[in-house]
Amino acid sequence: MNVHIPPKDARAAPESVTTGPITGSRKVYASPKADPELRIPFREIGLSDPNEAPVRVYDPSGPYTESDAAIDLAAGLPPVREAWIAARGLDVAPGRPVKPEDNGNISAERLVAPCPATRTIREAACGQMVTQYEFARAGIVTEEMAYVAHRENLAREAALDGAGARLADGDSFGAEIPEFVTPEFVRSEIARGRAIIPANVNHPELEPMAIGRNFLVKVNANIGNSAVTSGAAEEVEKMVWAIRWGADTVMDLSTGRNIHNIRSWIIRNAPVPIGTVPIYQALEKVDGDPLKLEWEVFKDTLIEQAEQGVDYFTIHAGVRLRHVPLTANRVTGIVSRGGSIMARWCLAGHRESFLYERFGDICDIMRKYDVSFSLGDGLRPGSIADANDAAQFAELETLGELTKVAWDKGCQVMIEGPGHVPMHKIKQNMDKQLAVCGEAPFYTLGPLTTDIAPGYDHITSGIGAAMIGWFGTAMLCYVTPKEHLGLPDRDDVKTGVITYRIAAHAADLAKGHPAAKIRDDAVSRARFDFRWQDQFDLSLDPDTARAFHDETLPKDAHKVAHFCSMCGPKFCSMQITRELRAEAQAMGDNERLSLEAEAGMKEKTAEFLEGGGKLYVAAE
Amino acid sequence: MNVHIPPKDARAAPESVTTGPITGSRKVYASPKADPELRIPFREIGLSDPNEAPVRVYDPSGPYTESDAAIDLAAGLPPVREAWIAARGLDVAPGRPVKPEDNGNISAERLVAPCPATRTIREAACGQMVTQYEFARAGIVTEEMAYVAHRENLAREAALDGAGARLADGDSFGAEIPEFVTPEFVRSEIARGRAIIPANVNHPELEPMAIGRNFLVKVNANIGNSAVTSGAAEEVEKMVWAIRWGADTVMDLSTGRNIHNIRSWIIRNAPVPIGTVPIYQALEKVDGDPLKLEWEVFKDTLIEQAEQGVDYFTIHAGVRLRHVPLTANRVTGIVSRGGSIMARWCLAGHRESFLYERFGDICDIMRKYDVSFSLGDGLRPGSIADANDAAQFAELETLGELTKVAWDKGCQVMIEGPGHVPMHKIKQNMDKQLAVCGEAPFYTLGPLTTDIAPGYDHITSGIGAAMIGWFGTAMLCYVTPKEHLGLPDRDDVKTGVITYRIAAHAADLAKGHPAAKIRDDAVSRARFDFRWQDQFDLSLDPDTARAFHDETLPKDAHKVAHFCSMCGPKFCSMQITRELRAEAQAMGDNERLSLEAEAGMKEKTAEFLEGGGKLYVAAE
Repeated sequence: MNVHIPPKDARAAPESVTTGPITGSRKVYASPKADPELRIPFREIGLSDPNEAPVRVYDPSGPYTESDAAIDLAAGLPPVREAWIAARGLDVAPGRPVKPEDNGNISAERLVAPCPATRTIREAACGQMVTQYEFARAGIVTEEMAYVAHRENLAREAALDGAGARLADGDSFGAEIPEFVTPEFVRSEIARGRAIIPANVNHPELEPMAIGRNFLVKVNANIGNSAVTSGAAEEVEKMVWAIRWGADTVMDLSTGRNIHNIRSWIIRNAPVPIGTVPIYQALEKVDGDPLKLEWEVFKDTLIEQAEQGVDYFTIHAGVRLRHVPLTANRVTGIVSRGGSIMARWCLAGHRESFLYERFGDICDIMRKYDVSFSLGDGLRPGSIADANDAAQFAELETLGELTKVAWDKGCQVMIEGPGHVPMHKIKQNMDKQLAVCGEAPFYTLGPLTTDIAPGYDHITSGIGAAMIGWFGTAMLCYVTPKEHLGLPDRDDVKTGVITYRIAAHAADLAKGHPAAKIRDDAVSRARFDFRWQDQFDLSLDPDTARAFHDETLPKDAHKVAHFCSMCGPKFCSMQITRELRAEAQAMGDNERLSLEAEAGMKEKTAEFLEGGGKLYVAAE
Repeated sequence: MNVHIPPKDARAAPESVTTGPITGSRKVYASPKADPELRIPFREIGLSDPNEAPVRVYDPSGPYTESDAAIDLAAGLPPVREAWIAARGLDVAPGRPVKPEDNGNISAERLVAPCPATRTIREAACGQMVTQYEFARAGIVTEEMAYVAHRENLAREAALDGAGARLADGDSFGAEIPEFVTPEFVRSEIARGRAIIPANVNHPELEPMAIGRNFLVKVNANIGNSAVTSGAAEEVEKMVWAIRWGADTVMDLSTGRNIHNIRSWIIRNAPVPIGTVPIYQALEKVDGDPLKLEWEVFKDTLIEQAEQGVDYFTIHAGVRLRHVPLTANRVTGIVSRGGSIMARWCLAGHRESFLYERFGDICDIMRKYDVSFSLGDGLRPGSIADANDAAQFAELETLGELTKVAWDKGCQVMIEGPGHVPMHKIKQNMDKQLAVCGEAPFYTLGPLTTDIAPGYDHITSGIGAAMIGWFGTAMLCYVTPKEHLGLPDRDDVKTGVITYRIAAHAADLAKGHPAAKIRDDAVSRARFDFRWQDQFDLSLDPDTARAFHDETLPKDAHKVAHFCSMCGPKFCSMQITRELRAEAQAMGDNERLSLEAEAGMKEKTAEFLEGGGKLYVAAE
């Protein structure tokens, strides 16, 4: 595994990133019978027991985890969508010229060179269908929809084969998760606005994925340079590292210099959707003064980023002038950067937000490239005290109104959500979002369920994330241990992603997702069979699982031992149960055993004792 | 701070443990007006803002966190309950002589010396009142009940003074959390069996605490030597370290040699209740062969441990012969050590569990010392697949039956719970426990909400723990990152305790505990005011919070800076909001502002702009 060390020189072009398979897994591509031209990526975990089928898991990590990954960052990833997009007959755009302010007017000697990979820039003509929403509404199943359908099914078909029934129970709170995901199901969900496939026509490297509550719960990771300078190499590696551990989308929240050129490296090498908050860059272009913001500079930024291939934009159009006073008595005011910028802008001029007033124009631009909306929650609560207050819900209602406008304009939409919410207010949040936003996918940050544990906010928020994911949130934005305190490093990003994969999976299980329990059961069988290596390989983080085991029982022999360090060989309940089961089988089927037990029959005792009955278990 | 390094020689007597205050806090003792002879311990966090009152938090850490802690491990902690117990006129017992098998027949050269501290050994005569339950039923408020009442109230009285209303909303699912906790309320909860104060009359060093769903949610940490030998010094330090970070009780799950003598060191130095699983030691006494277990050796072990001062015993009396076949088709069989031992015993002889058949006798012994029952869930599920199955619920119903027997015998009772449970089955578990066990306190391990993340099971289970705590569990047994993989080290114990303190606090918040939100709000105000040091000091782990901040912004000047590393000085939403609020105040009260905003009045614009409006914020 090639572990990248960030260069000291932030200007340096990225040269290498982490590659190679996750320990114990291999990358596989499957071509479904119905769509043989598609190559759907999965991660396959092989098991040591010949009676155990390999377990296929969803894999957002892209070509980086292939065993012989040949990555050329300057060339970008293979444009897997190129032919599909080309066939749609979109206009080729001349491309907006890069301006000095796109990179923060940085001096030549500090300028990061852009990614040299070039792509045809496309846009839809007026009235020409381009978004997944428009195709879906027209009854057309795109390649992206078919890809997503096969990707979501995982090993569902094989695993359910013969079973004839769902593998899992659950309570989905009105979600409608199908037994099998078909391309037509994906189309219908998108047409109803209940799911999106963020897929800019200028991001052909994308491996399509869906966000919607009738699909697997997804996880977003944030990257981006900030107060502390970081360069393109570091940001690309952050993205590759985050998707390696399971991030389904990545938001680039950069606010510093070189923002345009760093983004070019990220997008050309991203197999996952990339999201941004365009107002951050627009603000950079007006020297950081929100009062200088106006429509033209914002519009220019939207086009700049849409042509680069950004897949979804956070747009804080719900922060209206009338909402600002509702935050005056909050404990923590406005904690969203975009929200505070817009509140400042509105209040300074006593005027309505230009994002709100120009919302139709924003839709028209985003539609041309199929950039999805992520309607920002600029007034989300920043503390337990402010959760579910009038400001938050007023904005949410405005977001619902804007969702319908965006749909009418042909755009894909999801809605951002809080933030900080105690457990008893989480469901109210989810229910309100579903009700006022017409079931458009909810995309929540956490929520944090208490404010008293800075340094552990991946956990305070992982609790809330699991719950809101169960209740219906489609994508969970991760929180790292450094939240509120500092910038996440490599370990923090991994911890944040894995914590959120736990939350997302716990949510899928609780919703009764037909395929979710397959992996839990495989881990449990491996555990019960003392197949230690299988248990490690099936886990979200095989390296850490093995390292923890090695700390107490480092010898390879212990990886096949029928006990573990917690109880030692004498007290192993699992081993005792295995012996019990063998005895039970020897004595006949369970029903008979049960009847015998009920009757208190004693005659079996002698033969049981004859057959052994020592509790000591010799280590092998 | 005196950080203990475990000695290489497991035989060594403990000499030192971690002492001194948590960073930013000081230990205080309060003597309530109504009970001036009591000294109730709290931890007080002083804040830098003179307008902010210090925050008092619940503190189970004992004298170890006093600033001038003078700890003499060989003498044991001061016996704060001695006078109360002495006044009850109990019999002085001669004390069961220590036998070689009590320490696993270990050779003299490997024997750990017992703690030299001696205490009067007491027991109740037949028919003499001794348990907190018996006193409560008789309408008598003990010193322990009064102590607990004041301890639970925290700063509630002062904080609510003048407010006239509860500080928090919440949904408590039928719990009856009072505005203020009075000694009489504690008595009534204990009399109803809804709470316990585990407090062996032979553990006079104990600072009494309550476990019940109308009190703060509690956390238990497990320690104990196991396959890997550890000595008395290490175990005592584990206990001190666990309570330092917030463990309310500690279970000693030792199974190795020297078990009796190590326990003497732990109990004599424990300000929290100590729990054990007596069958572990009983099994050691019969060479690890469960088929040799019988009533006499078990009874002898109960008396041995009760005389030492153990406060609660896990008794797996719910594993009946008839339940064993119900586990035959499980994915992970029986995962409780005690459960598997008893299942083996029952099946081998085709006979009913002696724990079940002798339950009345067990009650009689435990009552004499006021050892509380923790009725073990020997058939708890060990995987998502086995959650809430027939075996688990059959045992739970038996535990409900035994609860009533124990109450009739005058004993205090709590019930142990799972284990591994997906989110959608957690509430069913809680509701069933409340229904069949007459609201006796529930004490759950986790539960883990998925099996796919070994190495992160503090998180998979922290999610379940927060939820079941909200639904009504009274005490949460922690899970460390090493669960399923190895033995926890010092860092794992701390991570496990803090994760569970998060879960317990999130649960208290969601239940609407009147005092829980005080600390969240204090953190949030500190955050909004950029009082970084206050934010660190108020957090569950001040050292980690500060260290994380230092990684990105190490200078002391940054601890008062009006920005942080996430957004940097330009994009700080908190600072923007502070400026907004100042402007809003200058413009008049909120109502007026709101009306103005609604009316879209423009005339204020000029004066706002005149007053400044730059987004740049200079770092101080």
